[in-house]
Amino acid sequence: MTLARKVLIYDTTLRDGIQRHGIACSLEDKIKIARKLDQIGVPFIEGGWPGANAVDTQLFEYFQQEPLAHSQLVAFGSTRRPHQRASENNMLKALLEANTQWLTIFGKSWDLHVTDALKVSLDENLAMIQDSVAFLRLHDRRVIYDAEHWFDGYKANPEYALKTLGAAVQSGAEWLVLCDTNGGTLPREVAAIAQQVQTWLGRYHEISPLPRLGIHTHNDSGTAVAATLAAVEAGADMVHGTMNGYGERCGNADLCSVIPNLQLKMGHDCLSPHQLTNLTQTSRFVSEIVNLAPDDHAPYVGRSAFAHKGGIHISAVARNPKTYEHICPEAIGNRRHIVVSSSSGASTVLAKAKSYNLELKKDDPVMRQIINEVKELESKGYQFEAAEASFELLMLKALGKHQPLFQLRGFEVSYDVLQSDVQCNIGARATVKVSVQGKDILEVAECMGPVSALDKALRKALVKFYPVIDRFYLTDYKVRILNSEAGTAANIRVLVESSNGDQRWSTIGVSVNILEASYQAVAAGIVYGLYRDSLSTQRSHLVEV
Amino acid sequence: MTLARKVLIYDTTLRDGIQRHGIACSLEDKIKIARKLDQIGVPFIEGGWPGANAVDTQLFEYFQQEPLAHSQLVAFGSTRRPHQRASENNMLKALLEANTQWLTIFGKSWDLHVTDALKVSLDENLAMIQDSVAFLRLHDRRVIYDAEHWFDGYKANPEYALKTLGAAVQSGAEWLVLCDTNGGTLPREVAAIAQQVQTWLGRYHEISPLPRLGIHTHNDSGTAVAATLAAVEAGADMVHGTMNGYGERCGNADLCSVIPNLQLKMGHDCLSPHQLTNLTQTSRFVSEIVNLAPDDHAPYVGRSAFAHKGGIHISAVARNPKTYEHICPEAIGNRRHIVVSSSSGASTVLAKAKSYNLELKKDDPVMRQIINEVKELESKGYQFEAAEASFELLMLKALGKHQPLFQLRGFEVSYDVLQSDVQCNIGARATVKVSVQGKDILEVAECMGPVSALDKALRKALVKFYPVIDRFYLTDYKVRILNSEAGTAANIRVLVESSNGDQRWSTIGVSVNILEASYQAVAAGIVYGLYRDSLSTQRSHLVEV
Repeated sequence: MTLARKVLIYDTTLRDGIQRHGIACSLEDKIKIARKLDQIGVPFIEGGWPGANAVDTQLFEYFQQEPLAHSQLVAFGSTRRPHQRASENNMLKALLEANTQWLTIFGKSWDLHVTDALKVSLDENLAMIQDSVAFLRLHDRRVIYDAEHWFDGYKANPEYALKTLGAAVQSGAEWLVLCDTNGGTLPREVAAIAQQVQTWLGRYHEISPLPRLGIHTHNDSGTAVAATLAAVEAGADMVHGTMNGYGERCGNADLCSVIPNLQLKMGHDCLSPHQLTNLTQTSRFVSEIVNLAPDDHAPYVGRSAFAHKGGIHISAVARNPKTYEHICPEAIGNRRHIVVSSSSGASTVLAKAKSYNLELKKDDPVMRQIINEVKELESKGYQFEAAEASFELLMLKALGKHQPLFQLRGFEVSYDVLQSDVQCNIGARATVKVSVQGKDILEVAECMGPVSALDKALRKALVKFYPVIDRFYLTDYKVRILNSEAGTAANIRVLVESSNGDQRWSTIGVSVNILEASYQAVAAGIVYGLYRDSLSTQRSHLVEV
Repeated sequence: MTLARKVLIYDTTLRDGIQRHGIACSLEDKIKIARKLDQIGVPFIEGGWPGANAVDTQLFEYFQQEPLAHSQLVAFGSTRRPHQRASENNMLKALLEANTQWLTIFGKSWDLHVTDALKVSLDENLAMIQDSVAFLRLHDRRVIYDAEHWFDGYKANPEYALKTLGAAVQSGAEWLVLCDTNGGTLPREVAAIAQQVQTWLGRYHEISPLPRLGIHTHNDSGTAVAATLAAVEAGADMVHGTMNGYGERCGNADLCSVIPNLQLKMGHDCLSPHQLTNLTQTSRFVSEIVNLAPDDHAPYVGRSAFAHKGGIHISAVARNPKTYEHICPEAIGNRRHIVVSSSSGASTVLAKAKSYNLELKKDDPVMRQIINEVKELESKGYQFEAAEASFELLMLKALGKHQPLFQLRGFEVSYDVLQSDVQCNIGARATVKVSVQGKDILEVAECMGPVSALDKALRKALVKFYPVIDRFYLTDYKVRILNSEAGTAANIRVLVESSNGDQRWSTIGVSVNILEASYQAVAAGIVYGLYRDSLSTQRSHLVEV
C-alpha cells in the first residue's frame, strides 16, 4: 500500500441528499444530522442554501450561535443572475450572512445549458462565474466551485467548459468540483476527463496554492461510487457524497461505501480509524432521522452486509474470517451476522455495560441471558440502536439493578368523531391503570392525538407520587412499519424521545397495533426518566439539550 | 461508438439472486421468472442446482416438458467431492439428468480455501476440476466453469489460481467465469486481473475455439456494476448478474444497470432494442414475484430514476430532455416523472394534467386555484411527491371532473386493554358512518390495528354498493411526524398505498391525530380506487404489476 494521501470528505446530505423523493427534513433534523457528522469528523458539511428557504437560513443562524466542533460548515448557492452586479445579488448576500469560512457556489459548464436553459451568452456565463467568486473572495470567504454538468459539458465543448473552470480559478476558487449532475458518465470516462483537467490545471502553476479537484457524482448509471474512486485515482482530493447515498432520482455517491473503499482498500486517509468505527451507527442514525428504513443490503453498513448462512460457511468464517469477508466488519462498526446460530453480541453488550457504568464480566451467566433477550426482541422488530434508554433498562433489569417505580395495568384509547364535525373535534381520550406503591390508580386524559393523550394520562396518574414527572415531555415520536411475512400483520415500531428539559432519551415499543407500540414506548420513557432522576450522576449517552 | 461486440448476459436470479435474505421462491415463482427472462431474450438463464433441492430438480424436469423459447436454461453444480470418481458423484449425475445443453460448475481458485475449507491437497483440487469438466464433456454437455473466489485466489497465489483455470480449459470448458465471490475487489483491480488472464489464455491458442472469459461480481464494495463493466472492457464476453441486483449480503451485479450501461453507453450488443424496452417492466415483475417492494431509486428502472422537481428544471426538460436526462427513459421502458413539490409552479401542474389526460390551459383560472390549494395544503404538512393519487383527485375536483361516490360522515376508534391481558388482546375496533347513494351506512369492524380496522369497516360499508372494493387492499402505510412550532401539537402525515391486484396508488392524510390522518389517507385510497375503476383507460402514472 502506498503512503496515504489525504482525501477530504464533503458531505452534502443536508442539501443534495434531502432532494430524495419523500424526504422532508426539519431544522431540528438537520441540526441533529450535522452534529452527528461533526462527531465522526467529516471535514466539510454542506448545510444548505441560505436565502433559498427559511429552514436553511435558520440553520446557519443556529450554527453561528452553536458552532460545530470539528467540521467546516459550508453554505451553498449559485452564481449571480445574468446582467447584474454580484454585489446586488441577494442570494450571494445571503451566502455572506451565513457567516461560514467556506462557501460553495455552482455555475454552468455546459454550453447547451447556458444558451438553452439560462438563455445568456457564453461570455456572460463566464462573467457570472468570475464576478461571483471574486465577490465572495473580496469578503474573505474561501470558495469551492461546483462545475455543474461538468462531464456532459466537457464532452460537448471541452474548450468552453475549461474556460468556465478558468474563470473560477482566476477569481480565486480553491477547489474545482467536477459534477456529473445527470449521473450518466461511466467511471472510465470520469477518470479520463478528470485526468485531462488535472493536466490542464498545470497552466496555472503561478497560482499558489494551485486549486485542487473534487468529484461529485450521481448514481443514475449505478456506478457513482466507482466513478468517485476513479476520479480520486485520477487526482481528485475532495469527494462529495451523501450518507446512505440519498439524493434525487437514483441518489448521490454513497459516502458509506466511498469512505471505507478509499480508506480500507485504496489506502487513503479520510477519517481516523476510530471515527471510521462509527460509520455504521452514523448511517443508521441518519436513516432514522430522515425516517427511511435502513437498507439491510447496503454495502459495508447494511445489516446483511456481513451475513453468513450455512454451517460449513460459518465454521470457515470462524476459523478464518478472510475466507468469506472482504474486510473486518468491526473496522466500520458493523458486525458479522450469523443467520442460523448465535454467538455474536457479547462484545457489544460488554461495551454497552461499560458505557452505562454497569459491572458485567464476560463469563457472567447474565451475559447469555441479555444476548438471548436482545435477539428475541430483535426478531420481533425491536432495534436498540436508536433506543438506548430501552436497552439500558433491559440490562438493568437483567442485572437486578432496577425496580420499576410503577406497574402498567392496562389502557384504553378512544376517538370519536361520529357525532361531531371532523374539523372541530379531533380530541382523543386515553384511560390508564397503573399500580404505584401498592395502589391501583385509574386516570383519564384528553389530548389532540391518542399518543399525547396516553402520555398525559400516565403522567397524571404518576405525578402525585413522583412530582419530577411534571418536567417530562415528549420531544419526538417516530413510526416505522416493519416488513411482514406474507399473510401476517406487519409489526409497527415506535420510537419516542422524552426530555426533562436537561436531557433527552429514547425508548422503543413494537406491536402490530400502533397504539400498543406507542404506549410501550411512552411508558418506557417515563420509567427511564424516573430511573435517571434517582441517580445523581449524568451519563454520557444522554444528549444535552 | 465502435462496432458492437456481443456481450452475453447470464442471469443467475434463480440461483444466486434468491440467496437474498428474506426471499423464498416456489417452483411456480421460478417458472414465471424464467419465462419472463426468456421473453426479453437473456441468452443464459441459470435455473438452479438440481439435486441440491427438490424445487430446482423439479424446475429442470418441468422445462424438459415445456422448454424455453429463446434462452439457454443452465443447470448449476459443484465439482466432484475429494477422492471420488466423477462418475460416482450424485451431484454431477443430477446435473446430467437436468438434460440441459449447458452446465455451469464451480471450483476453488484460492489455495486458502482448498487447504482451509475443503481440506484437500492443492493437486487433488486440480484433479476435481479436471475430472468433473471432463465427465460432463464426455456426456456431450457444454461447460461454463465458475472460478469461485477468483480474485482473492489470484492475489494470494496467481500461479496456483491459473492452474485451476488451466485444469478447466484442458478438460474442455468453453467459458471461464471469474467470480468475485466475497465482493471485495474494486473495478480497477478486476480489470487488471481480467486483462492478465486474457493474456495468459493465449498459451492455449491451439485449442479452438479458445475458451472465453466471463465475469461474476458481488456488490459488497458498492461497485459490482462498475467492476462488471471494467471486466468487459478487459475482454470478458459473458456477464453474470441478477435482476434488481438481488443476492446474498449486498447482492450481485444488477443486470438492470449492467445491460443498459453495456448497450446504451458502451455500444455492446446484449438485447435487441425492442427487448430492452421491456427491461423496466421485467424488473418490476420480478420484484412482485419475489414479493419485495421495487426500489424506486434503482438506476434506470426505478420509479424515481427520471423524476424531476422544480419549475425551471421542468421547463428545461420539456424543451430539451438531454439537459437533465442521461438517456431517453423510453429506451428501457421507463418514463419521465414530474414531481409535485412546493417549488413547483404552473409548469408542473400543466405537465401533470397532461400525464393525467386532463385538459388544462396555462391561463385557465383553475391553474391558480390548484397552485394555491397545493401551497396551502403543503404548509399544513401535505406533500404530494409520494401521494400522486391524492394530487390527481385534487386536480379532478378543481376541474369539476370528479364526484366522490360516497361521503364520509364520521368514525370512531377504540382500543381497550384495561380489562384484559395486553399480550392476548391487541384488537382495535373501528366504526364508520358514510353516505352512499343517499343512504347513511353505519358499519363496525375489528382488526389487529386501528388503521386496518378503519380500512375494513369502510370497505364493509361500501362493498355492497361497489363490489370492486372487495379487490382493494392496503399494501403500505407510512407515518411521519412533522415538527411543530413550540407549544403546539405536531402534525402527523400518513401515506397509504393501496392496490387492486393490478395497480398501486398512494394517498395522503395529515392531522394532529394519527387516527384522523390515517382515516383520511385510507378513505382517499378507496375514493381513488373507485375513480380508476370507473375509467376504462389506464393512466400512465399507475404502476403495472
